[in-house]
Amino acid sequence: MTPAPAPDTSTTTVGGYLGRRLEQLGVGHVFGLPGDFNLALLDEVLAATGLRWVGSSNELNAGYAADGYARLRRGPAAVVTTFGVGELSAVNALAGSYAEDVPVVHVVGLPPTTAMSRGALLHHSLADGDFGHFVRIAAEVTASAVVVRAQGATTAIDQALLTAVGTSKPVYLGVPADVAVHPVPAAPLSRPLRVLRSDAGAAEEFRTALAQFLGDAPEVTVLAGPRLHRRNLEDLVRAIAAQNGVRVATQSASKAMLDESHPANLGVYAGEFTRSARTRRAVDGARPLVLAGVLMSDFLTGSFSHAFDPEASVDLQLDHARIAGTAFYGLYLEESLRILEEVLDARSPRPGPLPRQEVPALAPHVPAEPDGPLTHADLWPLLQRWLNPGTLLVAEAGTSFYGALELTTPDGCDLLGQPVWSSIGYTLPATLGAMLARPGRETVLVIGDGSAQLTIQELGRILAEGLTPTILLVNNSGYTVERAIRSPEAVYQDVVAWDWTKLPAALGSPGTPTYRAATPADLVEVLGKVRADPDHAAFVELLLPRDDAPDSLVQLARSVR
Amino acid sequence: MTPAPAPDTSTTTVGGYLGRRLEQLGVGHVFGLPGDFNLALLDEVLAATGLRWVGSSNELNAGYAADGYARLRRGPAAVVTTFGVGELSAVNALAGSYAEDVPVVHVVGLPPTTAMSRGALLHHSLADGDFGHFVRIAAEVTASAVVVRAQGATTAIDQALLTAVGTSKPVYLGVPADVAVHPVPAAPLSRPLRVLRSDAGAAEEFRTALAQFLGDAPEVTVLAGPRLHRRNLEDLVRAIAAQNGVRVATQSASKAMLDESHPANLGVYAGEFTRSARTRRAVDGARPLVLAGVLMSDFLTGSFSHAFDPEASVDLQLDHARIAGTAFYGLYLEESLRILEEVLDARSPRPGPLPRQEVPALAPHVPAEPDGPLTHADLWPLLQRWLNPGTLLVAEAGTSFYGALELTTPDGCDLLGQPVWSSIGYTLPATLGAMLARPGRETVLVIGDGSAQLTIQELGRILAEGLTPTILLVNNSGYTVERAIRSPEAVYQDVVAWDWTKLPAALGSPGTPTYRAATPADLVEVLGKVRADPDHAAFVELLLPRDDAPDSLVQLARSVR
Repeated sequence: MTPAPAPDTSTTTVGGYLGRRLEQLGVGHVFGLPGDFNLALLDEVLAATGLRWVGSSNELNAGYAADGYARLRRGPAAVVTTFGVGELSAVNALAGSYAEDVPVVHVVGLPPTTAMSRGALLHHSLADGDFGHFVRIAAEVTASAVVVRAQGATTAIDQALLTAVGTSKPVYLGVPADVAVHPVPAAPLSRPLRVLRSDAGAAEEFRTALAQFLGDAPEVTVLAGPRLHRRNLEDLVRAIAAQNGVRVATQSASKAMLDESHPANLGVYAGEFTRSARTRRAVDGARPLVLAGVLMSDFLTGSFSHAFDPEASVDLQLDHARIAGTAFYGLYLEESLRILEEVLDARSPRPGPLPRQEVPALAPHVPAEPDGPLTHADLWPLLQRWLNPGTLLVAEAGTSFYGALELTTPDGCDLLGQPVWSSIGYTLPATLGAMLARPGRETVLVIGDGSAQLTIQELGRILAEGLTPTILLVNNSGYTVERAIRSPEAVYQDVVAWDWTKLPAALGSPGTPTYRAATPADLVEVLGKVRADPDHAAFVELLLPRDDAPDSLVQLARSVR
Repeated sequence: MTPAPAPDTSTTTVGGYLGRRLEQLGVGHVFGLPGDFNLALLDEVLAATGLRWVGSSNELNAGYAADGYARLRRGPAAVVTTFGVGELSAVNALAGSYAEDVPVVHVVGLPPTTAMSRGALLHHSLADGDFGHFVRIAAEVTASAVVVRAQGATTAIDQALLTAVGTSKPVYLGVPADVAVHPVPAAPLSRPLRVLRSDAGAAEEFRTALAQFLGDAPEVTVLAGPRLHRRNLEDLVRAIAAQNGVRVATQSASKAMLDESHPANLGVYAGEFTRSARTRRAVDGARPLVLAGVLMSDFLTGSFSHAFDPEASVDLQLDHARIAGTAFYGLYLEESLRILEEVLDARSPRPGPLPRQEVPALAPHVPAEPDGPLTHADLWPLLQRWLNPGTLLVAEAGTSFYGALELTTPDGCDLLGQPVWSSIGYTLPATLGAMLARPGRETVLVIGDGSAQLTIQELGRILAEGLTPTILLVNNSGYTVERAIRSPEAVYQDVVAWDWTKLPAALGSPGTPTYRAATPADLVEVLGKVRADPDHAAFVELLLPRDDAPDSLVQLARSVR
């Protein structure tokens, strides 16, 4: 028996405790902004730890950056804001983290406990004496929203962090200014938080039922969803895909989770939005079908046009699993997926190899009119030819994400987007977080002009950090995705025409190379220059016709209409 | 008896009805952004009306712009966003409108009723089937938050608008996409909404009690607060100030409501933050004291250091009044203030004129070192000398607002700030709204670099609209107000160093003159150039030492600490 660790008799503060717990969970950076009520908290969180502060220009951007960081590190992230004015600006980001299962810990510095309990009319409050408004707001978009009290502070923090990790959802920790500096014993830190394991009984029952359900089916089709990314289960998906008799489709939110060149790859399945009729049939008609970490939202199912029945499938969810409708609670996705792999591996006799199913790839492409206007029809094939293996491709909601779905990406690529929450402007700050989480990884952001205007100031921080993304700014004069849905000529579809290539210098980085491309020939030339200068970020303005859109976006717009 | 108006037998839609009602309330501009679920709504709201669309770069900015618009027009404003992703980004702005009594109508386009009622996992939702999250969030920061149904739609809209006007608070109207185009009779529009009048009995009882309470006091002191601005009661304040025996102090949030040269003016009262000891004594020791539209928040009372007792005063609030603690409900501020004026006017014998009480004015100023670094000690006196009468001065929370409080402004000036909610970044979009509400009025915005970074993209819209503010960007390398409170050297106090004067061109207005001033002599020269070019906006970067702050901000920071 291992002796218990020597008790740590030293003392820390509530803020220091929180910082150490975040570090133990692998958090290396903290995003956010200072404010009157979080300064002491920030000092405590940052003092005793190796956590690095990443100041954002505003709280929405900070929240998006934390979300991108959590997604890429496949683990929790932290964002710190101040009471009222700060935290409310981040609500949209937190809601997006909720909708897309991202464990962001929102830490908010609150006024001193005594001021709140006497209902003082403080600035940053609604001046009505009620200090509960904002934690109640947070409760709507998080898995747990609590105000930490001096008494029981370490337990409250631990439980919130465990909830974030266990549910892959954001949590809210409000820390009053006096509580932030309140001394607490450091001893509990000697036992790092351990994510809860699955119920062993449920796991065994599931294993038996799964083996029976799969039987000796010669072909098992897995639809791999974005929740597998959240739990860092890509290796296990690869192990499953390596088995004979297995085919793997992904959702658009998890495109390229399995390399698109992999023999088992079926490509992206999205109901009637699926590019390949064969892929669509393969998933809709699969017997048996295993849904793994799948989310059945409108854009991910082709407006609910999927023809398979989840209740007739194996459905592995974050904290439970189902087989043909029968639920196994207390079973986490890590465990149910591992059991799937083991059950497949234990089959006897082993199924034979399946013939490879060709997934239509975006063809190598020579633009018909190299000096004509650049359109999506040329943009994506040219981009595909240029992408390096291993690239992180970040694609904004709208023409960018749906264009990216048409790519056949090189091995090791990863697509980061937000197809469920679809909050425009998200990807620019998310790129900041993603790149800090995975330093050194080649990163390409594609974002439209309307979207980039929402969050442009974070470009300043990206460049000030010395990060070197390639940013492709699709300038199509407004909200092309909305124009595709309705009223393309309406005045509300326009945005102010910015001089995009002047922005990097204005935001403090005059050394960032900027380019413009209005034709396919321009684009080829510019992409060559970008490739030749890997040590710098690159900001490329692509001029596209106002109403030009990838086919898949046109289809999606029709469904929204 | 007047015959009833001929019934209007025509039909409109719910969206069209809402647009017409807004117009009837004097709304001329609608702020916001389009999104998947509000396009039909926008088409309806804008089609049948003269309402002008003002697209913002993001929803927070749109909310701030609407708030500034409502403040300057002294009436309601409207902002339109889309479900989830749009509306949540505006929550901070709406909360600020609530805290500072600004009647912003937040109109949100929701998914179709049937999709919501069956709990469809739509994009822009939390993908949990619950479509009530965001209206519950709205309910925390508005006086009324409702989802409009086809049945009873016109009543729901009317009641929400009456609530906004009656309470001077924001309201939330969620309009499902199908409801937006639902036909409704136009007939109710023939009877414009009339703001509710006070209870006549309460008014008479109040009149009698007030006359008795004031008696023959030779001196009546009025503390005039920001809620008077919201109800457009400045003329009545001037009428009261014109009476013998009356002196008027204002709160910082209503500085210069009465011209600072007015003989009855006592200047700004803010408890121990009051600049003049004599003003402070005059209010704290007033017998009787009339509080009119006053808000007793921390920054407005010198951290609650006021020595007067509201319960021993006359207290005129938005929807009730008190005399020495006795309440008169159903009495609106318009009415109670008018009664005050009448009671004062009816006094017999009339009190004699009071000797003028000198309020210390910011002295005409020759900088000691014209070529030394520009500091707040020089900035404000130089600015005061330069300001024209009638200017709208917009001052951002932090060094800008507290510097502006030290000014003695020329007649007809108005100070727009947000000293209760104090959300940094607010004033830049608020300037857009304020200038659209009061076209042609000379407008000067003073904002710090840390603050401007939160909302900078709205500068593009301000300039694209052809508005001509003078923008003084106080570049002091980060969050000076927070440095004054705690940990000035902390890494979180820094912001990315932007090249500010490049921003107008980058945001699409290369013709906007830009200037930099690092010394008092520079500033004098630049202000002269700005004055000589009234047809253009001007963007002036002021370089100030990092930790330099106006005295009043230093004092405030001490109180926050």
